[in-house]
Amino acid sequence: METRWLTEDERAAWLRLVAVVELLPGVLDSQLQADAGLTHFEYFVVAMLSEAPERNLRMSALAQRTNASLPRLSHVVRRLEDRGLVSRTPCPDDRRATNARLTDRGWDLVVAAAPGHVDTVRRYVVDPLTSRQVDELRGIAGALLIRLDPQGRLTPLDEPNHGP
Amino acid sequence: METRWLTEDERAAWLRLVAVVELLPGVLDSQLQADAGLTHFEYFVVAMLSEAPERNLRMSALAQRTNASLPRLSHVVRRLEDRGLVSRTPCPDDRRATNARLTDRGWDLVVAAAPGHVDTVRRYVVDPLTSRQVDELRGIAGALLIRLDPQGRLTPLDEPNHGP
Repeated sequence: METRWLTEDERAAWLRLVAVVELLPGVLDSQLQADAGLTHFEYFVVAMLSEAPERNLRMSALAQRTNASLPRLSHVVRRLEDRGLVSRTPCPDDRRATNARLTDRGWDLVVAAAPGHVDTVRRYVVDPLTSRQVDELRGIAGALLIRLDPQGRLTPLDEPNHGP
Repeated sequence: METRWLTEDERAAWLRLVAVVELLPGVLDSQLQADAGLTHFEYFVVAMLSEAPERNLRMSALAQRTNASLPRLSHVVRRLEDRGLVSRTPCPDDRRATNARLTDRGWDLVVAAAPGHVDTVRRYVVDPLTSRQVDELRGIAGALLIRLDPQGRLTPLDEPNHGP
């Protein structure tokens, strides 16, 4: 099959996206590490728990929402547990499963860390864009996720981005 | 200062972008590892060299274009050198500096790997978008890079995305 090389416009868009994908994680990590002692991934884990009913999720559900394998998530949750931010208990509905729950101390950390994180998101992502571009970005990233995340695991907080 | 929380539309766009940033590197790495034995970062390094005059760049320039620290880049280039893909020589203009040059074998690997990589980029990024969205993505990612990469280090292949 003949390779369909990128056009100049496609290549320019692609190289810019690659640069964003390369640079954004470091910016998020730096701010959260400095202000809350958390990586962006750790923050994402505790933020997901803070929004769950009773601040509690089954580990398998938490793994899906954070795009982590269970071993990777278990490792991170163990570190958060050592810091008293999360506690793990057997799931009452399924003794083989484990739940992760945000502790009061974890909740306080999310509450304290959220404003600085949101400022960073505004500064590097939202504020440089017009509101039309924000809408476009939502549509563009949604279109990519249909391929990158066909089961919609990472975007369950919103309406589904594709059919049933 | 009062926190300006994200609106629902901003939050939806942001969460989708985070998911793309989380998922895209794994997709690129998996395909390149399977087909060419390279991480996406290693591929990016050899691809940058393949486009340079005489397939040769000063290590400091290569570090800028790939957003790598010199120690990280040196580590990766050493591995590429061990595989006979890159060679390092003292820079003739500045004996304290080192140049990295793509070998013939490195060139052959880039030529062999490029079609599969481009197919992956098309499949996950370009083809799901309309051509209008590709143009929008270029503008959006360019706007973010003004903040993320104010010196324009990662996008020197194109017209500057901001003033002189």
